[in-house]
Amino acid sequence: MSGLRIAEIFGPTIQGEGALIGEPTVFVRVGGCDYRCSWCDSLHAVDPAYRGTWRRMTTGEVWAEVERLSGGRPLTVSLSGGNPAIQDFGPLIALGRAAGYRFACETQGSVARDWFAALDTLVLSPKPPSSGETVDWDGFAECLAAARGCGRVVMKIVIFDEADYAWARAAATRHPDLPLYLQPGNPVVDPEAPVEPQSLADSLLWLVERVTSDGWFAPRVLPQLHVLLWGNKRGV
Amino acid sequence: MSGLRIAEIFGPTIQGEGALIGEPTVFVRVGGCDYRCSWCDSLHAVDPAYRGTWRRMTTGEVWAEVERLSGGRPLTVSLSGGNPAIQDFGPLIALGRAAGYRFACETQGSVARDWFAALDTLVLSPKPPSSGETVDWDGFAECLAAARGCGRVVMKIVIFDEADYAWARAAATRHPDLPLYLQPGNPVVDPEAPVEPQSLADSLLWLVERVTSDGWFAPRVLPQLHVLLWGNKRGV
Repeated sequence: MSGLRIAEIFGPTIQGEGALIGEPTVFVRVGGCDYRCSWCDSLHAVDPAYRGTWRRMTTGEVWAEVERLSGGRPLTVSLSGGNPAIQDFGPLIALGRAAGYRFACETQGSVARDWFAALDTLVLSPKPPSSGETVDWDGFAECLAAARGCGRVVMKIVIFDEADYAWARAAATRHPDLPLYLQPGNPVVDPEAPVEPQSLADSLLWLVERVTSDGWFAPRVLPQLHVLLWGNKRGV
Repeated sequence: MSGLRIAEIFGPTIQGEGALIGEPTVFVRVGGCDYRCSWCDSLHAVDPAYRGTWRRMTTGEVWAEVERLSGGRPLTVSLSGGNPAIQDFGPLIALGRAAGYRFACETQGSVARDWFAALDTLVLSPKPPSSGETVDWDGFAECLAAARGCGRVVMKIVIFDEADYAWARAAATRHPDLPLYLQPGNPVVDPEAPVEPQSLADSLLWLVERVTSDGWFAPRVLPQLHVLLWGNKRGV
């Protein structure tokens, strides 16, 4: 069966994290991932147990839904997941860009695609030790090479603990030219569980103090605003 | 008596709002302002009643303090206030840039300075009706003209209510080429009063829904992270 595997399409809402934080965005969240991070906050788009909830959609169907949600007014479309790079979003990007929309893609950087070059923003999020995954830096470099021509490429790293922090410093040394965004991990992944805004503030404060006390001024440090706004609720 | 009037120099911490949100920054907050916004959250740098707490410092003294706080490691220096544009920061910017530091300045856009052109980021924040001030758009245009050569110029507008929102839409029409940042107003200005993270989330949610339901996708919508982290405490 052909087509794109889509977990959900929702918005417009604001991008809650990273380089495009605050930007009005429609999200196309794909189903399927080559990773299984221990703290994944999007299991419904990753765990094959949820496969029955994913829809097979043609590029035209996905585009029609983005147009409907945005009222036909160009905005940023974020391809997230799961890992969008295991599917072919080249035709969707071409369709959308012809209509004046901008495209961002968030991926761990494990699979390179030629359509990376057609993006406005590529966010590569290599996963730190707490994820239980291991980064293939050669694959990551292939993603960077594929993205030549892309508007901009940034690196985003989630930090849960000291080991992640040390790992992020090493990753930054490896790719000093990539703008870097750090974000405290969200230990609450149950969509039904409440998230206390204060705990979000506390984890951000820890990371801000960690970075500034080290005199490490290269990364931007940002929280997940969508968690502040909506907890772990889906579709927002 | 010559020199710069400085209310406080503090950091490094992260920039809590706007285009540089999350960026490690040392803040140079000047004393003195040509406005007196009804909801000003920096009265200690605005109200002449606090004049006795401001220090007269030479450019060299300000720079020495920035270097001390940052451990001599280049980062972004934000000139805020009060209104930094009523004083001459040209020499400080020249000194800092020669050492690899970046400079941002936040001002309402009422006074144009030739040193705007030497900034990395100029944030012009015209004040909406709830401030009780009236924007002189000719003066604002002079600021834009003076900033030619600046890395980038953005517009930031604080929104307290529907009237502010309507005003922001008109301001955006007037300057469609300026990247726009909207931020919900902080109704709590007493540095001793606690700020509930939930109230910050609620005001952000209101503004996000206002913008997206209108299909107005041009502005980024961002909270004040420093209020989430520290309430209205000074020096952070």
